[in-house]
Amino acid sequence: MAPFRWGIIGLGLIGGSIAHRLARQGLPVLGADQDPRTREQARASGIFEDVLDPPALVAAAEGVILATPVGAIEELLRTLPWRPGQVVLDTGSTKRRVVAAMGKLPDGVGAVGGHPMAGRETSGFEAADPDLFVGRPFLLVPTSRTTPEAAARAEELARLLGARPLWMEAETHDRQVAWISHLPYVTAMALVAAVEATGDPALWEIAASGFRDATRVAASDPRMMGEVIRSNADEVVAALEALLRILEAWRAALKASPPSLPPEWPRLAARRRGWSRGA
Amino acid sequence: MAPFRWGIIGLGLIGGSIAHRLARQGLPVLGADQDPRTREQARASGIFEDVLDPPALVAAAEGVILATPVGAIEELLRTLPWRPGQVVLDTGSTKRRVVAAMGKLPDGVGAVGGHPMAGRETSGFEAADPDLFVGRPFLLVPTSRTTPEAAARAEELARLLGARPLWMEAETHDRQVAWISHLPYVTAMALVAAVEATGDPALWEIAASGFRDATRVAASDPRMMGEVIRSNADEVVAALEALLRILEAWRAALKASPPSLPPEWPRLAARRRGWSRGA
Repeated sequence: MAPFRWGIIGLGLIGGSIAHRLARQGLPVLGADQDPRTREQARASGIFEDVLDPPALVAAAEGVILATPVGAIEELLRTLPWRPGQVVLDTGSTKRRVVAAMGKLPDGVGAVGGHPMAGRETSGFEAADPDLFVGRPFLLVPTSRTTPEAAARAEELARLLGARPLWMEAETHDRQVAWISHLPYVTAMALVAAVEATGDPALWEIAASGFRDATRVAASDPRMMGEVIRSNADEVVAALEALLRILEAWRAALKASPPSLPPEWPRLAARRRGWSRGA
Repeated sequence: MAPFRWGIIGLGLIGGSIAHRLARQGLPVLGADQDPRTREQARASGIFEDVLDPPALVAAAEGVILATPVGAIEELLRTLPWRPGQVVLDTGSTKRRVVAAMGKLPDGVGAVGGHPMAGRETSGFEAADPDLFVGRPFLLVPTSRTTPEAAARAEELARLLGARPLWMEAETHDRQVAWISHLPYVTAMALVAAVEATGDPALWEIAASGFRDATRVAASDPRMMGEVIRSNADEVVAALEALLRILEAWRAALKASPPSLPPEWPRLAARRRGWSRGA
């Protein structure tokens, strides 16, 4: 039996890493990207069976992975020539809007929302890494178009990537990533903004590993991250308001005379130290 | 001429790393630590000429490095048998209180405030690394007891560590580190607190590298960091209030209908990407 043929639209860090991984396992992969330079890099890499335009890729692939920024995913779901029996999976960082758009696909298309929990500040096809997803959760979100075959293919893909498939509802997903992904992005950007607003270039000279790590995600593509956060604004605001309440309480403690420290700090440090993936 | 003999009180990550570096260059080093197990490790390491109690170390060393937590530095400055001609340098993370305490040393003692801008979440003598300071700024702060010899010895030590000596006033120092070191610690702890307060253990399961990096400093020793932040509370509060104003403005933008993104995000991302030591 011929192996299942995936096609990937969007050959950045995520799409490129999936392609590399599948190709390394001898599986056929088709690719598409709107950027001519990326298409050239993809062709030169030799890992694609073919690099096509998106409609031709949809026509030729049994399963299609939409690995573009979140706004483009909705647009592609609306406009590409999907056909019954086809499997569609995306890799966008928020899921409610994508899942709603998948619900409007033609009957018989099997669609699953996806979000591999792996990332880097680097981006683009040249940063792709077949081992990017190893050991990481690959979040899978059911839609009104999720067929048994689509669910099985999505899980199989997650395992081919070395990841752990983990099913959850779109609402749960978007709430959870607001806390562990979008809120850290907002605070990292705010730290950069605060240091920048001092107007003191010496701060960048003396800043050490603590500032570097705390602001690392601020180096991510701001257009891509901005789109993600705007698509999840209600949940990001809820998380941000909780964070503001915590910081305001701590400010009051530090502003007291004499200054006092938040009594929960030792417990929080222990929680962070006890986190197995934290090192 | 016999080489200058440094003695180090406090053999944790910082003191231990200085000791390793000096010993590797064939220089004599004395050590002291209040913890019996650390003293044993120090003796077993073979890098110390001798491991003594603090008064005996002060009597035997030409230069003394106080590498204890900030509260203990003040106590040691007040109580040890300092003698004229001796050089004293500390490595504490805030400088106004230490510099004030150095001003009360006996006449003729040459004292310089110091702060090597290097750190790790790991701690203790076993985490010491002779290359910890390489290429990093070693901040030096003048005191009313800074003699020409003490200044020259402090600069020489910084260079022996592979670091760049950089002089600044205590007030400038404490303001600058509030922004680039203490504020990132407070926000990292607040991110941990916010995630913990959701009561949802699944968040720790799916959290990826963004959350890991943003909260890495939260794994630092909370007693040590708490003491540092309390000793600099006024400057930390000023920085925290600036951060809160930024976050409140961004919350308002994200809460608008439709949500808008802070227009400065692309500029901030570019600033962070352009930071040479940020990778």
